[in-house]
Order: sequence, then C-alpha cells, then structure tokens
Amino acid sequence: MAIRLDEIIARLGGELRGDGDQLISRIATLESAKAGEITFLANPKYQSQLSSTQASAVILAPAQAEHCPVAAIVHPDPYLYFARLAQWLSPIPPAPAGIHPSATVMTELPVSVSVGAGAYVGANVRVGANTIIGANAVVGSGVTIGSDCRLYPHSTIYYGCRLGSRVIVHASAVVGSDGFGFAREKDGAWVKIPQTGIVIVGDDVEIGAGTTIDRGALADTVIENGVKLDNQIQIAHNVRIGAHSALAGCVGIAGSTTLGSRCTVGGGAIILGHLTLADDVNVSAGTLVGKSIAERGTYTGMVPFLEHADWLKNFARLRHLDAMADRIRALEARLNELENKK
Amino acid sequence: MAIRLDEIIARLGGELRGDGDQLISRIATLESAKAGEITFLANPKYQSQLSSTQASAVILAPAQAEHCPVAAIVHPDPYLYFARLAQWLSPIPPAPAGIHPSATVMTELPVSVSVGAGAYVGANVRVGANTIIGANAVVGSGVTIGSDCRLYPHSTIYYGCRLGSRVIVHASAVVGSDGFGFAREKDGAWVKIPQTGIVIVGDDVEIGAGTTIDRGALADTVIENGVKLDNQIQIAHNVRIGAHSALAGCVGIAGSTTLGSRCTVGGGAIILGHLTLADDVNVSAGTLVGKSIAERGTYTGMVPFLEHADWLKNFARLRHLDAMADRIRALEARLNELENKK
Amino acid sequence: MAIRLDEIIARLGGELRGDGDQLISRIATLESAKAGEITFLANPKYQSQLSSTQASAVILAPAQAEHCPVAAIVHPDPYLYFARLAQWLSPIPPAPAGIHPSATVMTELPVSVSVGAGAYVGANVRVGANTIIGANAVVGSGVTIGSDCRLYPHSTIYYGCRLGSRVIVHASAVVGSDGFGFAREKDGAWVKIPQTGIVIVGDDVEIGAGTTIDRGALADTVIENGVKLDNQIQIAHNVRIGAHSALAGCVGIAGSTTLGSRCTVGGGAIILGHLTLADDVNVSAGTLVGKSIAERGTYTGMVPFLEHADWLKNFARLRHLDAMADRIRALEARLNELENKK
Repeated sequence: MAIRLDEIIARLGGELRGDGDQLISRIATLESAKAGEITFLANPKYQSQLSSTQASAVILAPAQAEHCPVAAIVHPDPYLYFARLAQWLSPIPPAPAGIHPSATVMTELPVSVSVGAGAYVGANVRVGANTIIGANAVVGSGVTIGSDCRLYPHSTIYYGCRLGSRVIVHASAVVGSDGFGFAREKDGAWVKIPQTGIVIVGDDVEIGAGTTIDRGALADTVIENGVKLDNQIQIAHNVRIGAHSALAGCVGIAGSTTLGSRCTVGGGAIILGHLTLADDVNVSAGTLVGKSIAERGTYTGMVPFLEHADWLKNFARLRHLDAMADRIRALEARLNELENKK
Repeated sequence: MAIRLDEIIARLGGELRGDGDQLISRIATLESAKAGEITFLANPKYQSQLSSTQASAVILAPAQAEHCPVAAIVHPDPYLYFARLAQWLSPIPPAPAGIHPSATVMTELPVSVSVGAGAYVGANVRVGANTIIGANAVVGSGVTIGSDCRLYPHSTIYYGCRLGSRVIVHASAVVGSDGFGFAREKDGAWVKIPQTGIVIVGDDVEIGAGTTIDRGALADTVIENGVKLDNQIQIAHNVRIGAHSALAGCVGIAGSTTLGSRCTVGGGAIILGHLTLADDVNVSAGTLVGKSIAERGTYTGMVPFLEHADWLKNFARLRHLDAMADRIRALEARLNELENKK
Repeated sequence: MAIRLDEIIARLGGELRGDGDQLISRIATLESAKAGEITFLANPKYQSQLSSTQASAVILAPAQAEHCPVAAIVHPDPYLYFARLAQWLSPIPPAPAGIHPSATVMTELPVSVSVGAGAYVGANVRVGANTIIGANAVVGSGVTIGSDCRLYPHSTIYYGCRLGSRVIVHASAVVGSDGFGFAREKDGAWVKIPQTGIVIVGDDVEIGAGTTIDRGALADTVIENGVKLDNQIQIAHNVRIGAHSALAGCVGIAGSTTLGSRCTVGGGAIILGHLTLADDVNVSAGTLVGKSIAERGTYTGMVPFLEHADWLKNFARLRHLDAMADRIRALEARLNELENKK
C-alpha cells in the first residue's frame, strides 16, 4: 500500500510543500524514517532531528515548515494529522466474517459479524454489523453490542450489559462483573447484595487489557461516549465516567463516584467512592482523590522520592508534623513576648 | 415473581406496618422505587427522601418508622435485611446442568454440575453438587471444588488448588499461579524457585474479576472462610487472609503476610511482606502498610491532594522536612539562650 | 522420586557432611521438614530452628555447618543451591505433546509442541520445540515463540509479537495489546493512534498472572533477557526493561520509559513516562518515580502510616508545609534581629 502525498492532502487537508507525487507507504519516527516513509514533528524539542531526517515527507506546523529539508504537509495540529493518517495507513488487521465452527453462538447474528474460534455468545444477544468477537471471547446472554466493535480474545461481557458502536475491548478485560456490595452480620460475616444493575458503555469507548468494570448494584454503571480506559483500570459499581474522559493504567475508581466530561486521570491514581469530579478535571498520576472536586483544573498528590538514606531521615518526620507545627507556634509566642519586652 | 409483604416477614423477620397483602416484585432505591417495589432506608442522610417515596413499602429502622408514608418492614438493621431480601428476589441467573458438548472434561462430575461451552476441567478433579463452571473457564488437574460454587468465564484454577463451597470466582481471576520466588546468581540472573504449595480457599469466599492469588512456595497460600476479595487484588505466595476479611479493589498483599479475621483493607492499599496484622484491623484506602500491626483499629497513610500549584509549593518541602526540624531545634536553642539572658 | 545426597552433590556441587547414601525425596522448610526431606538455612534469623530440625539433611553456609545436627550440604549460597535443587526435585507438571482435538491451530507446529484444549494458534506462527500452550490460550497470527516456553491458560499473545525461549506466561497475562495513544480533537474527543509496533520478549522471561504489556506505537516495547515480572504489572508502549530486572506485583511503568539492567522495583510502585533509570537501580515498594535516575542505588518514596487519629493531625499539615517553612524563616529573621540588638 502506497499513497501519494497529494492523495493524503485531498483526504485529510493540510498544505503541501514540495512534490505531491511522492509515494508514502508507512509512518515512522523522525529519527528512524527512511525513503518512502512519512514522519511528523509535533513536539518542538525534536526539532533538531528535522534537518537530518531521511523521511520522504514530514507533517509539521507552519512555524517549522521553513526548516524542513524534504517535502512537507503543513497543518496546525501535526499530531492529530498523524493520528488520522496512521489510521488510514495502518488499518486494523481484518478478521474473517462469519462464525468459526468451534465457536458457540446461541443467537442469530448479522452475516458481517466475525466470531472467532472458541468464542461464546449467549442467548438473546444483539450485535451490530461488522463487529469482531475474538477467539475465546465470552459474551453473556442478553448483551447488546453495537456495530464495528472489536472484542479481543479473553474479553468477557457479563449478561445484560450494553456496548455502543466502535467499542474496543482488549484481552482479559471484564465488563459487568459483580460490584463489591455486602451487608454485615453482627458476627462480622458478609451477606452478598445481588448486583442487579448492568454496565452501559457508550460509543467509541476503548477498554484496555485487564480492565474491569463492575455492574451496578440497583442502578447502572455508565461509561459515556468517547471514554478511553487504559489497562488494568478498576471501575466499581454505579460509577459514571463522563464523555471523552481518559484514564491511564492502574487507576481505581471506587463505587458511586461520578467523573465529569473530558477529565484525565494519571496512572495509578485512586479516586474514592461517592465523590463528584467536575468536567475538565485533571488528576495527576499516583494521586489519591479523597474528596469531590468542583472546579476544573489540575489536582495532584504525588509523593516525591529520595535516595533511600534521605528518605529515612525526611519521611520519618511525617509522623511528627503536628508536633513540628506546635513547636513553631510556641516559638512564635515566645518570640512575641521577647520582642514586646523591648 | 411477586411476593406478599407478610410472606417476606414470615421468612426474614421484622415487624410489619401497614398492609401485609401488598405485592412486591423488585427492590429499588428510595429515590427511584415505584409501585410494586420495595426500598430501604439504611443511611439517615437519605431520610429526607422518605416522605416522597413512590415505593409500595420501605425497610427501615424503628427510629424512622413513624415518618414512613407507606407500608414498612421495621428491622434494627435495614441494610442487612435488604441484602437478604435481594438475594431472594434476585436469584443468580441459572445455568443448564450438564457438560456442554464443546467443553473438555477429563473427570467424572456429579450430574448437577454445569460446565459451560469451551470450559476445560482436568484429570482428578473433584467438584461438589450444583457448582457452575462458566464458559471457557479452566480448572487444572487435581483441583478440588466444593458445592454451589460459581466460576465465571475465563477464571483459571491452577492444578492442585482447593476451593470450599459457595465460592464465587469472577472473570479473569486466577487462583494458584506461581509465586514470585527467585534466588540470584552472582551476575544478577534469577533462578526460579518452583512453587510447590497450593492455594486453599475456604467456604463462602468471593474472588473478584482479575484478582490473582499465587500458590505457596513450600507451604500454602490460605484464604479463610467468608473472605471477600474485590477486583484486581494481588495476593502473593504464602499469604494468609483471616476469616471474614474484606479487601477492596487494587489491593496488593506481598508474600508471607498474615491478615487477621474481620480485617478490612481499602482500595489501592499495599501491605508489604512478612508482616502480621491483628484481627479487626482496618487499613484505609491508598495506605502502604510497612510494619506489623498488633492492635485492632484503623490505620491510615493516605496522602492529601492539592490544586497543582499548591502541591508544587508544599510537597517539595517533603525533601527538606529533616532540615526544617533541625532549624526548629536550632531556633529553640537560640531562644532559650536569649530568654535566659534576661 | 528419591535422590541420594551424593548424587545431588555430584550434580550441583557443595561439600558433603555426613552420610552420602541418605535418600532425599522432597524439600521442605526448616521448621516442617521430616525424615526423607532436605531443607535449607539461608537467613541467619532462622538458625535457632536448626538444632531441632527433623530433616534428613540441610543445605547451609560454612559458618553454620558446625551447628547442624544432621547431614549437610555446605555451600556459600544456600538459597541459590536450594533453588537449583528444587528445580530438579519439582519438575514442571508435564503436558501431553501434540494438539488437543478441540484446539484451533492455523500453522504447522513441531511435534514436540503441546497445544491444550480450546487453545487458538493463528496463521504464520512459529513455535520452538517443547513449548506448551495451555488450555484456552490464544496466540495471534504472525507470533514467534521460542523453545521450552510455557503459556498458561487464558494467556494472550497479540499478533506479531516475539517471545524468546524458556519464557513463562501466566494465566490472564496479555502481551501486545494496544498502547494508550491518542491525539485530541479541539472538542476534547480522542483520535486513536494505531499501535504499529510489537512486543519483543527475550529469553528466560517470566510474566505473571494478569500482567499486561502493550505493543509499541511506532517502535517496539522490549523486555530483555531474564526479566521477571510478577502479577498484575502494567508495562506501557515503547517501554524497555533491561536484562535481569525484577518487578514485583502491581507495578506500573508508563510509556517510553527505559529501565536499566538488574533493576528491582517493589510492589505497587509507579514509574512515570519518558524516564530513564540506570542499571542496578532499586525502587522501593509504593514509590512514585517522577524523574530519571542516573545513579545506581535505592530510591524510596513510601509514605508511613499512622493510627487514624494521629494521621488526621499530622497529614493535614502536608497542605501547609510551605507556610510552615515560611514561618520558620520569619522566626529566624526575627531572632537574628533580636540577637544583633545585644
């Protein structure tokens, strides 16, 4: 597959510098690109690599255009342009339409749907056109899945859940497992509360490998349109994630918390339960969010690290911060008294 | 399925206020319940919703009974009552008894056992009555599973492990993978130590989606009766979790640590290895437990978060806490001297 | 299986004390070992158990040899010796060679390869001799796997990835899922960047249960020889882990970060993206690494925990550390002034 530069511009826009006949077959990094490949300059800190690039063309912003030694596509957002071009040049590997003979499918499916070897699709499932259900994936009874979705191997959709269109679910991800709900007997034993809600996943959602989303207790867990979830995220029951929010790996969201739209959450952050975060809130990596956030902005609780011996000296003081504050207050009082004596 | 209020009370106890003929078909929240539905008031902060409820009946505590505008079941622990009633009204979706023709089963099983499509059950496995092994689940050779268990799709039980009765294992959970044990060569290379123990899981344990429990190195890993594990928990080799302890999502317990009975651990907490926690210890979310805890109680190491600019100013000081303490001590000494000069 | 002590020494070295005819069938802990079993004393803190051991023989260091009441193998590194002996005495459970009739295999495989029930192996896959692909495992098209590997049930290798020899992949682990890469539209919507790299895994790597390793964006994600990954680790796209590094459970490594050789990372640590860690760096458990580390050594950011009431008093001060530092500085200035007045 090789595309001419002017074909790219005809489809994706941007302004051409140089020869539109140039054939492009692949995208590569600024540093590694060779003849026949296109690259991009999105981060100005790589600008020094521009002069020596071996690429046949570069996608870049107007400010960098004059420094480009080869053909260029000039566009105000080179990274976004690169993403769109990459989707064109790197289509998802296709899957054969139809149901593999080793799959178990208890439902009538559109002919364009692909069901891989060993996959299971329960009764009363509805699946939209062109959806691909990977090898050994499991779709429980009563599930609804939109069109153009891709469920990778070993993904599990529990009974009754609903996925929109163009949803991607990676391997070992789980949608609709029981929320963690128990009442407690006087002797400390736990009594399970049946989790009778479902998970509702919007359109254009991506769910990373090993990510788990619990079904709601009485109401539902909701992942709105365009949400992107990285790997190994845990979403508890009755959570709602607002549209176009993006959560990095290893994030945990406890029960009944609501995130606004366009939020971002850094890797390993934990958001406690029954909280509300406004739209456009950015939570930094490794941050524990213990109360609601009403204003957009960036919120952080990352702990710095130190060489071990320095850590020993400094972090032990954390147990005595209150005493330190008391001593400062006492010093201030004594000093006031001394100063007033003058 | 609809049940009369007086049938509920005959089976689950509590005191009736109002019409016992009232038919109940479903449980809902105080806010959303409609005619034919029952709800509950467990948390006093929702009491204001009581007067406007559309439910046919409410489960509540004696103190709230007089404010209830509709029929009521009065019980000292409304939440526990709700859990028991929900189990009755929301039975686990049934699975057909017998072995699906696409499953591979190397063992004789009781006729009441259900084995789903594509599941694998190895040789010399013992399974109790009414246990359900989900689609594509894998049970290794020599495993013992009690009665009335439910293994969801893509759960994996490694060879030789033992599960009690009424155990629930959610999708992509793993019981019995190798513990992380290595000796080290002089050049830094690791030599694997075979993990020859197993995992022993008691009765009434629930294991969340994506949770992993490693087999022991020489001895065993033990999860006692009634333990509840949320999603994506990691339990290392030779850990013991005491009866009726409950661990929230994303918790990690390192090797050879022992938790007492009725402990609770909040989401994302990490408990280091070779420690012992007493009975009835509560570890807060996001807390790192780095030493043993001998007394029951609540222990916390959660780090507060701040607006990013405030965080920059304040958390950088963590690297200088020791110097701050030194400066306070120096101030105190100088002030003592000044005061003594008077 | 029973081996004579002098056979062990002939194969693994060490110096014999006592009767070389002694038959050994199993390894056990110092405390629990019985006749016919061998144990080891690697940690001096267990030396007090030596005098009462019921073992037939003990592996120990020269310094402890004189205290041993039974036969002994004396070796400078008893733990390493134990590891090697355990591998001999506890061979991996065998798997039948050949392809289970319920597996789906689209490729010619060596006759020594074992493919379990329900497993899927795509087209154009190359697998080395004696490799075992577990029940319901999935190997995508174009994958290369070396010899003597073991893929446990429900492991997933995405298309195109490459594994060396003697690699172990535990249940529900995922190699090659899409990295988390998106460009952003002006309205906040995310545009997926196809992840066109692969994952390259070296020889002698172990990948724990539920661990996920994303494929690279344009370049590849690389796990070098001898790396050991515990359970539920998340490795983002374009990360490189140097040879013989070992990462404990629940660690997260963000995109494009490079770890040196022989690094260790404690449980639950988070390493942010685009960083470089030198060889022989040890990161403590629960530590967030937010900048590159150029020097070997141990680095820590673990937060201490406190009894809850003490925590409330002390950790609230974290929000006011900067103000505390200002107050100390002001005190110093005022005290200087007072002192200078004398």
